[in-house]
Amino acid sequence: MYNFIFQNTTKIYFGENQLQHLSEELKQYGNRILLTYGGGSIKKIGLYDKVMDELKKANFSVFELSGIEPNPRHTTVNKGADICKKENIDVLLAVGGGSTIDCTKAISAAAFYDGDSWDLVTHKVPVTKALPIVTILTLSATGSEMDSGAVISNIDTNEKLGLLHPLLQPKVSFLDPANTYSVNAFQTACGSVDILSHIFDCYYFTASKKMDMADRIMEEVIKTVIKYAPIAIKEPENYEARANLMWASSWALNDFLTTGVSQVPVCHAMEHELSAFYDITHGLGLAIITPRWMKYVLDETTAPQFKKFGVNIFGVDESLPDMQGAERAIECLSDFLFNTLGLQSTLTEIGIDDKNFKIMAKKACWGSVLPSLKPLGAQDIEEIFKMCL
Amino acid sequence: MYNFIFQNTTKIYFGENQLQHLSEELKQYGNRILLTYGGGSIKKIGLYDKVMDELKKANFSVFELSGIEPNPRHTTVNKGADICKKENIDVLLAVGGGSTIDCTKAISAAAFYDGDSWDLVTHKVPVTKALPIVTILTLSATGSEMDSGAVISNIDTNEKLGLLHPLLQPKVSFLDPANTYSVNAFQTACGSVDILSHIFDCYYFTASKKMDMADRIMEEVIKTVIKYAPIAIKEPENYEARANLMWASSWALNDFLTTGVSQVPVCHAMEHELSAFYDITHGLGLAIITPRWMKYVLDETTAPQFKKFGVNIFGVDESLPDMQGAERAIECLSDFLFNTLGLQSTLTEIGIDDKNFKIMAKKACWGSVLPSLKPLGAQDIEEIFKMCL
Repeated sequence: MYNFIFQNTTKIYFGENQLQHLSEELKQYGNRILLTYGGGSIKKIGLYDKVMDELKKANFSVFELSGIEPNPRHTTVNKGADICKKENIDVLLAVGGGSTIDCTKAISAAAFYDGDSWDLVTHKVPVTKALPIVTILTLSATGSEMDSGAVISNIDTNEKLGLLHPLLQPKVSFLDPANTYSVNAFQTACGSVDILSHIFDCYYFTASKKMDMADRIMEEVIKTVIKYAPIAIKEPENYEARANLMWASSWALNDFLTTGVSQVPVCHAMEHELSAFYDITHGLGLAIITPRWMKYVLDETTAPQFKKFGVNIFGVDESLPDMQGAERAIECLSDFLFNTLGLQSTLTEIGIDDKNFKIMAKKACWGSVLPSLKPLGAQDIEEIFKMCL
Repeated sequence: MYNFIFQNTTKIYFGENQLQHLSEELKQYGNRILLTYGGGSIKKIGLYDKVMDELKKANFSVFELSGIEPNPRHTTVNKGADICKKENIDVLLAVGGGSTIDCTKAISAAAFYDGDSWDLVTHKVPVTKALPIVTILTLSATGSEMDSGAVISNIDTNEKLGLLHPLLQPKVSFLDPANTYSVNAFQTACGSVDILSHIFDCYYFTASKKMDMADRIMEEVIKTVIKYAPIAIKEPENYEARANLMWASSWALNDFLTTGVSQVPVCHAMEHELSAFYDITHGLGLAIITPRWMKYVLDETTAPQFKKFGVNIFGVDESLPDMQGAERAIECLSDFLFNTLGLQSTLTEIGIDDKNFKIMAKKACWGSVLPSLKPLGAQDIEEIFKMCL
């Protein structure tokens, strides 16, 4: 009970005007930088220019990889790795959200491998070395800025897989809430659901006994997101809301909350199949799946935990019987996701039918059973997908 | 607002039977170990033998420094540094509570300095290099197991001063709650007060605006201590209580809770004079001082914060006017400290009179003013000491 190993080495610069420290941090690793980013929103918000100004002042040699996709592809990882090899890159600077950072993490390892980067993602070959990574975060969601994981998609095989290695942990991350002011309502909502889901999936809803303090802290991070996501949606330039969401994003998945009971992230596993097959926004898929998963696994054994969630997070009446309290909790969560955050509530609404459910379900459970609050096999997962229609 | 830099690199092994990892961690740093400990309680509980077994199995050369005092002296630091130099020590292994770990941190730096270690503590010479430190914690209190600070006393000059440097951060700490089963009721109470005081002093009671999430998490750590300290006192071998207190100890002062508003730890500054002059247990001094400090700084501007503390931690009635709510909060805290934890409530009871108050007060405010919730000069501090009689 409670045994765990914890270490998180990432150095965080949190707040405004911290980019003055960018060059001193990068310089520790060398002079040749690969700057990575997505579709160009960092140019629109002026961040690209700010970063380039800092880099030029310090005379770095800067190379660029742009156009990293929302569900980053292994082919893009290959492109980045080629630049690293050809240009003798010393350090990677990822400017963007989780997709850009994840792609950059995979590049950092692929830079030392001569084959296809997909071999690393599928664990055909192990990660043995990686270039150092510095990140500048522009979206509060994945927690990638302060963890050692990356999720990469292979569009040819409809696969979306995780790569986890201590060498992928960013050395330094710059977290300026103002860099998320331009994130629109939909993406703010989806990012917030991703944060919540990391806590739900990895730590909060588990059959194992947790340390009380960790449990309480999880609930405060959940409450923080539930309080500030709607504020950030209504007032995109509310610094306090953006700051709380940003720090919540980093905390939700950086092992601070672990108490040795981390489990298979079951809703994430199901959602990865949705985005692998349909390239939808991760947080939206999670929003649609999560309450259905809750309903599916709800029984007498799991009801007390869902009720506790409802009581502590949404103020559900504690005197209700477990099952009723649990049902009320799931209603409250659904109301938050689909009314307060305004996300679409069914797969049908976003144009997904049951055509691929069987194969997706089989892939989601890795060919056997997902151990979770209640173990789920392929048939269970297919059932949950159907509930999402 | 909210700007901060955060990094905490210590690797934590939490839980039972983790010492199997001790040798692999130490080996990274070399073969010659200086084992440091206090008065021998680690022998009584069998921990010394367990550690030595692990070290012997791995063929380390082990040297020892025992007898580290509860308020560790610079003369002991000098002794340890001499052993390091003479025996070419590669790595320090501190087995004990905060005093042993603090002393070991100072030794780690003094090992590279040829003069008196007090020069480092007084910042006459800077810390430039330090031996790596691994710790095995036996008392939940100071947070030294996961931070970069140490407090060292000079008994000749009645000084107790802090030394803070990133190089002093332990590389690895082993946190086994079972190693605190033998901690008696008084020391458990004092350690718990120390944990609370770190949060009160450094983060929670401040005039600056904090990030909401950090504030909420602080309160959960406070609640954890208030819940589990009495349980650990009544049932010394309650694993859950010991585990929660131990992890709370590490969290209370390792910068996780910082939101860029950390201030001078004012109650700690006052208490350090008490233990410097009278060698009393740190947590006891803090317990006596804290409610008096609260009463002294209580006015219309500070009342809302103390009331909020009372409402959120002790369930004080929210509808009370600020001043009444604040007074009630201080009463609740006093009741917890002096009744629930059973600590002595006045300096008189522990044989301290006002003889040295003037000089202690002058030293406590570093010759000028302690910036805090309300700035305190020497006269204010003397007044607070008098309230403790």
